[in-house]
Amino acid sequence: MDPTCFETHPSRYHHWKLAIDGELARLTMAVDDAHPFKPGYELKLNSYDLSVDIELADAIQRLRFEHPEVKCIVFGAELDRVFCSGANIYMLGLSTHSFKVNFCKFTNETRLYLEDASANSGLASLAACKGTTAGGGYELALACDETMLVDDGNSAVSFPETPLLAVLPGTGGLTRLVDKRKVRRDRADVFCTTAEGIKGKRAKDWGLVDHLVSRTKWDASVTEAAKALAAKQTIARGPAVTLPELAPKVTSDAITYKHVTLSFDRANRTGELVVRGPEVSGTIDMTSPTVWSLHAFRELDDALLRLRFDYPEINVIALRTVGDSSQVLLHDELLAKTNSGFAREVRLLQRRVLKRFDNTARSFYAVADRADSCFAGVLLELALGADRFYMQIDKDEQIGVALSVANQGFMTTSSGLSRLEARFYGEPERVKQVLARGAEGRIASEEAEQLGIATVAADDIDFEDELRIAIEERASLSPDALTGMEASLRFVGPETLETKIFGRLSAWQNWIFTRPNSTGEHGALTLYGRPERPQFQWKRT
Amino acid sequence: MDPTCFETHPSRYHHWKLAIDGELARLTMAVDDAHPFKPGYELKLNSYDLSVDIELADAIQRLRFEHPEVKCIVFGAELDRVFCSGANIYMLGLSTHSFKVNFCKFTNETRLYLEDASANSGLASLAACKGTTAGGGYELALACDETMLVDDGNSAVSFPETPLLAVLPGTGGLTRLVDKRKVRRDRADVFCTTAEGIKGKRAKDWGLVDHLVSRTKWDASVTEAAKALAAKQTIARGPAVTLPELAPKVTSDAITYKHVTLSFDRANRTGELVVRGPEVSGTIDMTSPTVWSLHAFRELDDALLRLRFDYPEINVIALRTVGDSSQVLLHDELLAKTNSGFAREVRLLQRRVLKRFDNTARSFYAVADRADSCFAGVLLELALGADRFYMQIDKDEQIGVALSVANQGFMTTSSGLSRLEARFYGEPERVKQVLARGAEGRIASEEAEQLGIATVAADDIDFEDELRIAIEERASLSPDALTGMEASLRFVGPETLETKIFGRLSAWQNWIFTRPNSTGEHGALTLYGRPERPQFQWKRT
Repeated sequence: MDPTCFETHPSRYHHWKLAIDGELARLTMAVDDAHPFKPGYELKLNSYDLSVDIELADAIQRLRFEHPEVKCIVFGAELDRVFCSGANIYMLGLSTHSFKVNFCKFTNETRLYLEDASANSGLASLAACKGTTAGGGYELALACDETMLVDDGNSAVSFPETPLLAVLPGTGGLTRLVDKRKVRRDRADVFCTTAEGIKGKRAKDWGLVDHLVSRTKWDASVTEAAKALAAKQTIARGPAVTLPELAPKVTSDAITYKHVTLSFDRANRTGELVVRGPEVSGTIDMTSPTVWSLHAFRELDDALLRLRFDYPEINVIALRTVGDSSQVLLHDELLAKTNSGFAREVRLLQRRVLKRFDNTARSFYAVADRADSCFAGVLLELALGADRFYMQIDKDEQIGVALSVANQGFMTTSSGLSRLEARFYGEPERVKQVLARGAEGRIASEEAEQLGIATVAADDIDFEDELRIAIEERASLSPDALTGMEASLRFVGPETLETKIFGRLSAWQNWIFTRPNSTGEHGALTLYGRPERPQFQWKRT
Repeated sequence: MDPTCFETHPSRYHHWKLAIDGELARLTMAVDDAHPFKPGYELKLNSYDLSVDIELADAIQRLRFEHPEVKCIVFGAELDRVFCSGANIYMLGLSTHSFKVNFCKFTNETRLYLEDASANSGLASLAACKGTTAGGGYELALACDETMLVDDGNSAVSFPETPLLAVLPGTGGLTRLVDKRKVRRDRADVFCTTAEGIKGKRAKDWGLVDHLVSRTKWDASVTEAAKALAAKQTIARGPAVTLPELAPKVTSDAITYKHVTLSFDRANRTGELVVRGPEVSGTIDMTSPTVWSLHAFRELDDALLRLRFDYPEINVIALRTVGDSSQVLLHDELLAKTNSGFAREVRLLQRRVLKRFDNTARSFYAVADRADSCFAGVLLELALGADRFYMQIDKDEQIGVALSVANQGFMTTSSGLSRLEARFYGEPERVKQVLARGAEGRIASEEAEQLGIATVAADDIDFEDELRIAIEERASLSPDALTGMEASLRFVGPETLETKIFGRLSAWQNWIFTRPNSTGEHGALTLYGRPERPQFQWKRT
């Protein structure tokens, strides 16, 4: 299979048109049905697949960095009577279970990033739904700050997933309906089982949309609402930078970037992820799009996505860092101190990439076993987010960890806790203890274990064997059980809209995707668009 | 299939011995391997199945009502080297998916009720683990207030589910480990993948157990720790009552109790649940075990359990209430006012039964279409918890709802919100408005719809058709999609240990139960105890 490419550029978009209009960005869905992610289906009626969503993610990211003047995204559609008809059903029907789950996860992340841009980056969004807004189309609208629906006696918002396809509106739909928009649960129940959806006044009365506007007043109302949203934004981004291409070198057993390498041992179902710290340099240019803090994390993000989609058989990843810890600390401190919108954007991007890491269904063992190991500051977050952290004890105490401002609370997980708070859940005094000790300097392996940072610290003699056996054992376990186990242990503590989407909603959707009633021979998803009616197994579970 | 009987009595227990010892109850697991729930497997090594758990649930319930003097339950085992080896694997291997899921749900509820007894009823619990404590055995221990493990160089606590069976410790295990006991997540990861478990000092250091005691000091230490727990209890129960048998009449198309009838239309996959209010009587004896507030809810509880286990093909339930609303209100007010441990126990039982209702994977449509409909007070909670509430508008305004103290916050859902708070999530002023209006008297259908209590209020002429079509449509949808949808819409708002167990953990476990790696022909659960090794599909999802 060809590797999946998550990089694109507005000049190469097939499915979206991006136009900058002062404070507004018009992001117009114009899905080209002849350019699906894979052959085998046509993207009719502004339905989407992974290729459409990769472009969407790119557009949002570029607006954050490249167009700081934009304060509101207006989502529109080129079709006259259809805003978006959701994820392409034929694509779902043709996809493997593993692909479906990862596709949903990526689309969920993109929609959460839209909300993140609004909450933290002064970049709001308006869904201008001038026509049918179904399934994933309405889920995109729900992720926007406001939703405008055309009042033409015909256009409805709808979640036909359950009645027509025997699956869920799993891209955050069910959760956002009741938890974000606070639609009354019995009304949400009616809405989610009414295939044709709800239109007009009722859609507004029930809180499904914010604005209801006629065709004649449409364009003016969209611009007015978008400008009103833009006017509310108080956070300034910029200065603008142009995000350079990552263009990794991809071979059959490795993906290599400037700062990141992901390599595979397919026979053993294991891999190694190496993140290199910044090179030692005289001055750090905290206005450059190639500054390590940004570029290395963009690379890491891309590597994680490729891992998820293109290497499903790789189960365990040893995660190493290499470099000069003091350089990472320097970058972290400078980044936090720099009073620019760009610097804040970089930190927010680091936070999102770390969340993508937390949400990647692979076992990650962080490993510090070299003198130039570099689990410092923002890279230490990777070790704290990993399932385990193995540290070698060397007699010179060269191997250790170091803390920076990046460990002090900004890099929250989906639950809203920092990784230290999640690690020492219910023991805030231990978080303080670790932060205080970190302020005094490097922490060697043995002490890191005592403090609860390392899972295992072992002498040179035992270390290699212990690690090898641990990885072999992990790689021998059921991938499904590990995914469920990690999803439970990683997300300790409070739940948020975000964790509800990835835990509760996604877990149910994954279950439903495996059930004959959706994906079996006679399932509703399988038979969609064919003359046969689905045949259900009626047992309730 | 014979109907499942959830009623039992200590005099008929096969698997537990219950002995009252002053403030302590000794509940000793002595599983009789010759009395499984179904033929086909032996309950070796204190492993359990539904029959064992039905007795456990009965014992906890009776201790609450019949033995108010007991302040601490000591869980022990009759075997010398095994406390409990968890759910019986052969039973799981032989069970349908639907049974496995419902079995897990019931065992989860029972363990949550143990925690509820400690939090609200002055009835703590101690797990005295004098031997192997594996899987569901350790999950039972985690639900107790404290856990004591014997320090004999051999006995360990363990979660071998993932490494040996390719499933999860799904009876709350993963959740309680990190969220309740706050075991560090990387250590929890090691623990949950170490089949032989963790014993001795490390078990205590990692927070897996509270006490570590040698064999010679065992009995004295158990009694001492249990007495210390008992001494901490400040909530008094009682006076004691003896819970009478429910003994419903079960025919092929109905289960009939004194106050509750559950009947079925199997051809249409629908059912009707009727709850009758209290009979009009001169005085209400709020010390009697047959008082309506207790007896009707015990019947409802039993009916819900039978529905879950014995009627999987029934998908939609019309829920009606019949009686004199003022009598329900009278009972609610008297119950709330009565200053006795017994009265509090009754309210707590009502609350648990309502939670069981919320957690039942069937579509519930509450229906008020008779003049003697009786959605009042605690019975109104059923309508608020149902997926929809249909009310008929009659010109005499005989049909309506009424509120009581039972709607004012005590009857919390698993999320900790009241059903009114969940209904008007994020709109506390609407909760107040409804409560204020309720204090003024009955609310007829039309106003109930305006207030947001009813989903639909329709005139006599339209009502019957609208309801019939709604039920037919619901019964035509995929049962799996409905379960996932309802699980997302019903549990709006904050998440708790309880909702995490039923949402996140159970949803993942259900998914894993459908995967070939556990229950397929070559899956680990299927092949457990056989010479063949499981063969895994290695794709990570």
